Amino acid sequence: MNLRYVLKQLGLLLVVLSLLLLAVAAWSGLQLLQDEPAEAGAFRALLIAAVSGLGAGGILWGLTRSTRPQLGRREALLLVALTWLVGAALAALPYLLWVHLPDGPAATHPFNSPVNCYFEAMSGLTTTGATILSDIDALPRSLLLWRAFTQWIGGLGIVVLFVAVLPTLGVGGKRLFQVEAPGPSPEGLQPHIRQTARVLLYIYLVLSATQILAVWLIGRTSLFDAVCHTFTTLATAGFSTRNASIGAYQSRAVEIIIICFMVLGGVNFGLYFALIRGKLKSVWRDPELRTYLGLMVVGSAIIVLCLAGQSITTTTGRPIDASAGAAIRYGVFTTVSIATTTGYCTADFNTWPFLAKAVLILLMFIGGSAGSTAGGIKVIRIWIAFKVMLSEIERVFRPHVVRPVRVGSTTVDDELKLATLAYVVGIVILFVLGSGAVMLLEQWTGDGTCDYTTAASASIASLFTIGPGLAMVGAIENYGWMSSSTKLVLCLLMALGRLEVFAIIVLFTPRFWRGD
Amino acid sequence: MNLRYVLKQLGLLLVVLSLLLLAVAAWSGLQLLQDEPAEAGAFRALLIAAVSGLGAGGILWGLTRSTRPQLGRREALLLVALTWLVGAALAALPYLLWVHLPDGPAATHPFNSPVNCYFEAMSGLTTTGATILSDIDALPRSLLLWRAFTQWIGGLGIVVLFVAVLPTLGVGGKRLFQVEAPGPSPEGLQPHIRQTARVLLYIYLVLSATQILAVWLIGRTSLFDAVCHTFTTLATAGFSTRNASIGAYQSRAVEIIIICFMVLGGVNFGLYFALIRGKLKSVWRDPELRTYLGLMVVGSAIIVLCLAGQSITTTTGRPIDASAGAAIRYGVFTTVSIATTTGYCTADFNTWPFLAKAVLILLMFIGGSAGSTAGGIKVIRIWIAFKVMLSEIERVFRPHVVRPVRVGSTTVDDELKLATLAYVVGIVILFVLGSGAVMLLEQWTGDGTCDYTTAASASIASLFTIGPGLAMVGAIENYGWMSSSTKLVLCLLMALGRLEVFAIIVLFTPRFWRGD
Repeated sequence: MNLRYVLKQLGLLLVVLSLLLLAVAAWSGLQLLQDEPAEAGAFRALLIAAVSGLGAGGILWGLTRSTRPQLGRREALLLVALTWLVGAALAALPYLLWVHLPDGPAATHPFNSPVNCYFEAMSGLTTTGATILSDIDALPRSLLLWRAFTQWIGGLGIVVLFVAVLPTLGVGGKRLFQVEAPGPSPEGLQPHIRQTARVLLYIYLVLSATQILAVWLIGRTSLFDAVCHTFTTLATAGFSTRNASIGAYQSRAVEIIIICFMVLGGVNFGLYFALIRGKLKSVWRDPELRTYLGLMVVGSAIIVLCLAGQSITTTTGRPIDASAGAAIRYGVFTTVSIATTTGYCTADFNTWPFLAKAVLILLMFIGGSAGSTAGGIKVIRIWIAFKVMLSEIERVFRPHVVRPVRVGSTTVDDELKLATLAYVVGIVILFVLGSGAVMLLEQWTGDGTCDYTTAASASIASLFTIGPGLAMVGAIENYGWMSSSTKLVLCLLMALGRLEVFAIIVLFTPRFWRGD
Repeated sequence: MNLRYVLKQLGLLLVVLSLLLLAVAAWSGLQLLQDEPAEAGAFRALLIAAVSGLGAGGILWGLTRSTRPQLGRREALLLVALTWLVGAALAALPYLLWVHLPDGPAATHPFNSPVNCYFEAMSGLTTTGATILSDIDALPRSLLLWRAFTQWIGGLGIVVLFVAVLPTLGVGGKRLFQVEAPGPSPEGLQPHIRQTARVLLYIYLVLSATQILAVWLIGRTSLFDAVCHTFTTLATAGFSTRNASIGAYQSRAVEIIIICFMVLGGVNFGLYFALIRGKLKSVWRDPELRTYLGLMVVGSAIIVLCLAGQSITTTTGRPIDASAGAAIRYGVFTTVSIATTTGYCTADFNTWPFLAKAVLILLMFIGGSAGSTAGGIKVIRIWIAFKVMLSEIERVFRPHVVRPVRVGSTTVDDELKLATLAYVVGIVILFVLGSGAVMLLEQWTGDGTCDYTTAASASIASLFTIGPGLAMVGAIENYGWMSSSTKLVLCLLMALGRLEVFAIIVLFTPRFWRGD
């Protein structure tokens, strides 16, 4: 293991993150000049955090400068894990400094606790969207911007990682990705990481710019709100600048625009490559895309039917009388928000009928497409697992008939089948362990009010980067009341789920560290 | 598909079941002669059921007599499914007739409903042990005997099916079984079904006789109670003749004897073959046996620790003060009862701490050994799945290192790995679907009082042949209050779980019925 090179790259990443922090600090400074006194504390916090990050990254880079560049599989995995674990610490720094510097809020503010700050930052970088804040509106605007920006960075990071970096290194994602892209050779991605990453960045920027304009001009929100929500929509992340999330706008236009971009964020970014090259047909025939869209249509239909005749409570607390229009409006938005693992809310779905909640939980498990910003098990894995199950049933009475499992025109080999099923089993085990850990930690170190539904849905919502869960972590609640140890477990679940388990879990195996 | 031959064999099975019914009817007649008036109704019910069964079986056999004998894979699977589905109907007949004939109980008796009778019979033949009866003590003794006897028959049937029949036919169980038996060639089972089945019957009879004597002479219960509880112990089934289950005896001796025989029932019966041949060493080295015993020891230890300092309520409702002795006594009994999927109760574990319940639920999922009377996913599958997960984690950073997964001295091939993981995923999906169905049916057709814990634990307890669950289907509760549609779903889950899914699920695939 070339640990020095890993640390050097980590230093570089810290410098980049600090520069982005510096940009937000600069914006905060501009606000301060325009006479926004609330920004005084936030500006200093952002500036100090940026400088500290630059310092730490620079020192790390300086100390390890003379290392021969060598990034093998294990180095890459360690770097990925450290990027998210250490990156979240840097991203949390402005929150913590803001409370502890002069001009900050009262010491009772949730950000007074370092664990809360780390939770919020990890929830940002992993695009989860779970918050420990009870009053989001009261946060200085620059901190809201940084909070949203962490999700945009995290979403871009994940897409670049899974579409550009890991396949080239032959780590984990590769085999799955090869299946995703319909016919990998003709529409295959650029061979070099840099070039692929650059194209992905352009796609991400174009989509972001389009959404900002749409939300601002058509949705008629403030430009600030349009920017912040775009950052957290395309990353299918879910942080909002409002306590009532998207429900605060009470605007059909905003909701429709956001639905569209949540759906776009959950699509395999490899398909945008194909689209750029005019391979419309192969995009349209992609089985994962079709299943992804189909699941959302069917899920929405069931949930809308469940809501028929039910009155709905919005996230602002306003009751809406039962009507077909309301059922469609709130049903479809919630379904898409959950299925894409975004986690924006317009209605308190915790009070919805059991069947509606069951469908939402099912969609949480499935998640979006591989190679997208969405979390969950991923549609392609569900698809492969489903086909394997069918072929195993047939094998019971026809053991000698070998029927190849296909995704599009690609045949799934035994290795990939096994990897897919192992992933499904593994993530379910993690979900169960996570639920149990939350339950126990809340009993031992918390206030003991956590029930099964809360524990299980907190575990799902963290592992699959959704954000809100049910019951006491539902749409109109937050995670602030949980004990610090529970929050740290949820942070670990977020990282495990976001990095598709392997980058984190290998760190716990002795063989990974053995030098050979 | 040679449907006629399947029906012929089914006719034969009905005749055999009817003869067993007749034996119980004869015993009931003897009781009647000894002046037990409560037996009058039960005697007639058993007799009429036996005669009806003989008639139906005889007619079926007569109509299909002239069929060429041909039992392929699909015929065998269909026969297995029909045996349990139709067999349960015949086994339910005495209960139903008893209520509806003169001298029977009031029409408010749970057995007044055909669905309740079918549920009780299916719970018997699948060795589940879930009951719809609220007052078990009040049942005529001959019906109690029949109820226990169905479980003994069901347990024997499952062992013969999975150890003798299916491996020879090359259906489902074979591949798994080959792994179980340590070194299949030397200690391999008898090549012919008949011979193997006969040896299994002897083993089953010897174990049964031993337990009857032990419970009767050492445990000092009545001979009737000793026989009934032996029938339901060795089958790891769990029906009792008492409302308070084994807790009714308040006897350490009875509990210890039953613990021993529950453990013996959950062992792969193939190992008893090896034992008979003096292959002590290979039995002792069997990885499944070691893991099975190890899990029970570790599970018991955790649960005993959880119970330290807690007062315990027995199934008779008596509170027991906190003491190390009580924690060990009730903790170990409950752990073994649940881990072997028996479901006897001495204490109301629904009131135990969360961690204790979580461990019990985990043990429910794992279950006993393959080729035993126990249910659950089976220790060997958990073992293989665990090893596959470990090797998949290593594959992330060492894609080219192929490390074979071994069980004992046998290497697990990719096909078996895939089948095992697919089974685990499939059974978890069935558990989730089952829980959802119970929840929805109770909302739509029931009284709407069913909560998540009840629905989920009813689904687990049925699928894994345990019997009691948690909350409203807990140790001191029963399933009588559920709606008929829910009970039918649970019957299906019992059959699915008992026959390891495939025999039932293939019936729902169109390809199974297509004639080729």
